Amino acid sequence: MTSYVERLAKRSREAGSFVCVGLDPPGDLPVEEVAPRNRALIEATAPYAACFKPNLAFYEQFGIPGLHALEQTLAAIPDGIPVIADAKRGDMGNTAAAYARALFEVWGFDAATVNPFQGQDAVAPFLAYEDRGVYLLCRTSNPGSATIQNATLADGVPLYERLAAEMPSWSANVGLVVGATAPQELARVRELAPQTTLLIPGVGTQGGNPADVVAAAGGTPGLMVVNASRSIANAPDPAAAARDLRDALNAPAP
Amino acid sequence: MTSYVERLAKRSREAGSFVCVGLDPPGDLPVEEVAPRNRALIEATAPYAACFKPNLAFYEQFGIPGLHALEQTLAAIPDGIPVIADAKRGDMGNTAAAYARALFEVWGFDAATVNPFQGQDAVAPFLAYEDRGVYLLCRTSNPGSATIQNATLADGVPLYERLAAEMPSWSANVGLVVGATAPQELARVRELAPQTTLLIPGVGTQGGNPADVVAAAGGTPGLMVVNASRSIANAPDPAAAARDLRDALNAPAP
Repeated sequence: MTSYVERLAKRSREAGSFVCVGLDPPGDLPVEEVAPRNRALIEATAPYAACFKPNLAFYEQFGIPGLHALEQTLAAIPDGIPVIADAKRGDMGNTAAAYARALFEVWGFDAATVNPFQGQDAVAPFLAYEDRGVYLLCRTSNPGSATIQNATLADGVPLYERLAAEMPSWSANVGLVVGATAPQELARVRELAPQTTLLIPGVGTQGGNPADVVAAAGGTPGLMVVNASRSIANAPDPAAAARDLRDALNAPAP
Repeated sequence: MTSYVERLAKRSREAGSFVCVGLDPPGDLPVEEVAPRNRALIEATAPYAACFKPNLAFYEQFGIPGLHALEQTLAAIPDGIPVIADAKRGDMGNTAAAYARALFEVWGFDAATVNPFQGQDAVAPFLAYEDRGVYLLCRTSNPGSATIQNATLADGVPLYERLAAEMPSWSANVGLVVGATAPQELARVRELAPQTTLLIPGVGTQGGNPADVVAAAGGTPGLMVVNASRSIANAPDPAAAARDLRDALNAPAP
């Protein structure tokens, strides 16, 4: 049984890529077009993808038909490319166990994003799956996230730094979600969690710079993936957009 | 258009009850028995219910068939009794808007639990629905929640107190989730948020005491509901269990 990080590292090396391709169908798309659109996007971008990441919100917005489209989408992803459920679930005890069962057993995702607001015992049921990855939100890329994540603690440290230092100790399967829009904070997280896989949204539409991301997060396969969703899916040529991001993330430091 | 709090207050007064009946089917139940079990539970407990609260995890654990069971469950709830989606969703921007669309437009819930870890702008798309309630996690009833929610900030205040003071200012539709297992903290939240509806889990199986809860949260219809799930659903007589909890919450202070 290989770990999620091993599988991600293998794929990232094979594809020579850190690109995580987001699969987030827009709400104004007729639901019957969701799976065909995703199939085309997957086919075009798979050669440049370290992993794929559907955000479940964009399927749930269509109700049950959207989840059938998610099933068809997952079936179209080639073997050997890890798939992350961007679900940001979080609850306690037997409820967290039910969410973990849904994501890892029913849907079969390789990894999931999880919200750590309820603490270690709430995250534990996700971590109990030894061959799956769990990306815990640490410092997200939206402005309002500063209220909690950047709150200064009594010892002068912002909360996200304490989380970056502590949460990886919970399990070898812990990864962290850290936005690309604040490169100094990304660098600080990397310093505190040198061996932890970082899932980095916020390049592309949100404005984060690929070169800054690599400088801050380091360019080790298996320890970093950079997500882009709309900037790839909505590009005139999604294959070219994915390839360009792959190349930008592989470029030597200026 | 009545607000969620008005509808909840009306129902709470009519039923003379603060009881929120959780609808959380266990994972070892065959999925085809989920809706019939819930229908029986709803029929038995509706006279004593201020509201119902399915936790979505317990439906998602069955995959798409579980969501069909959720549909059938919602159809069995009598008109006039508000229904809370315990979903603990949380994401940013257009993703949060997609979750809000799923919960409020597709499923038609009266209110939802939302995780505030990503801050005000991430919660805003849920609050944009003027006739729906949004219960933000504040101080949950599991031990590990202390790591983040009870982290001491630079000004000496625990994070959950800052959240209790600040989050109700975001909208009149903000409610707070505060566990029954720490009555002093519940009382402190009530002091900081005197006009905010509190959704209080943690009585019953988790051990919180009804008299302590009422003393801490106050007994105003529309401003407090107390959830019980397993302790009602798994009781030999769920109707009696719901009635007993209703009565315990209505008893004069000792």
